[in-house]
Amino acid sequence: MSILNDLQWRYATKKMNGQPVAQEKVDYILEAARLAPTSVGIQPVEVIVVTNKALLEKIQPIAFNQPQITTTSHLLVFAAWDSYTPERINKVFDRVNAERNLPYEATADYRQKMLTNFAGKPAEEAFQHTARQAYISFGMAIAAAAEQKVDATPMEGFDAASLDKLLELDKKGLRSVTLLPLGYRDAENDWLVNLKKVRKPKEEFVTVMS
Amino acid sequence: MSILNDLQWRYATKKMNGQPVAQEKVDYILEAARLAPTSVGIQPVEVIVVTNKALLEKIQPIAFNQPQITTTSHLLVFAAWDSYTPERINKVFDRVNAERNLPYEATADYRQKMLTNFAGKPAEEAFQHTARQAYISFGMAIAAAAEQKVDATPMEGFDAASLDKLLELDKKGLRSVTLLPLGYRDAENDWLVNLKKVRKPKEEFVTVMS
Repeated sequence: MSILNDLQWRYATKKMNGQPVAQEKVDYILEAARLAPTSVGIQPVEVIVVTNKALLEKIQPIAFNQPQITTTSHLLVFAAWDSYTPERINKVFDRVNAERNLPYEATADYRQKMLTNFAGKPAEEAFQHTARQAYISFGMAIAAAAEQKVDATPMEGFDAASLDKLLELDKKGLRSVTLLPLGYRDAENDWLVNLKKVRKPKEEFVTVMS
Repeated sequence: MSILNDLQWRYATKKMNGQPVAQEKVDYILEAARLAPTSVGIQPVEVIVVTNKALLEKIQPIAFNQPQITTTSHLLVFAAWDSYTPERINKVFDRVNAERNLPYEATADYRQKMLTNFAGKPAEEAFQHTARQAYISFGMAIAAAAEQKVDATPMEGFDAASLDKLLELDKKGLRSVTLLPLGYRDAENDWLVNLKKVRKPKEEFVTVMS
């Protein structure tokens, strides 16, 4: 196994067969998302795991009726903080100090700088930043699912504001960013499964300045 | 090996020892970045690999004098398109059709929809979207480096506009988004190497709606 083999194996599954994904595999994928690096280690990201059928049926029209939403085993909703606040930043620094047995003073200057730089951002600018961090977790979850031979469909196509209301993410200070339904491909009925994976060639992707 | 072990092993290396990373490992990491999924498969992402010492010395002050910039073996600059244009969208659809032996008509409706949805976005909104895609590639490169036991430092702390000018990314319709210096840790002199990795606990990261 290697990440290159995993990334070659995966594809944006268009039709799932309804087979459940074992909880230990879901936990594995979530753990990869949790371990993802984020700016200054602030982790302005959460994942909501939806398995409730009635809820998934309400989400489907919000996601433009894509069929994976109701044939998924577990729908992962990647959400990011709607803003940076002093409370949120302080909580991160308090945790880091506690877990590393550091006194307040050890990180006080850095904390103050981050309170100014991050908590000082207007909410919309802050969200553009937190959303980017969510994409790193999203990427790690995609790679981890492929490693576990779990199919997944990275999705941006949904009405985030409606989903935030439905899941009450707005009340938690979160905004949804991406979806990742997990499941197993319905290989006989998925139009994409046998089509060649297309990427731009390396010479268009990489420029070397040596 | 597994991605969870790799993510536990890695950390944001603060001091590198100057040892070169073998080209095959760099190529492996770049290939993971290239295989990353992107919205509609458009791949609005490129990576610039800087090894030129004089250039790295010019980049260092742009990256707030972080020492990894001049002790790295290869500096990866993740850049995203500054906008979606009809030319760029058409090129993607032309390539997909060619590689999958599909006639123009097979994807014509979808192409038209993407020309409207993507090429119609104002440049700044488009860039917020392309930059997010770059973060998925960035994540894959971070995971691939860890798998290859290559150290790396995910970095957002630099003046993107200055870097774009220096590397003439602006002339290529690109904007820099993140940096990833590759190298090997200087374990004796890196203050972070022995500090505990801190992440918020699973119960703060995951919410289940079952």
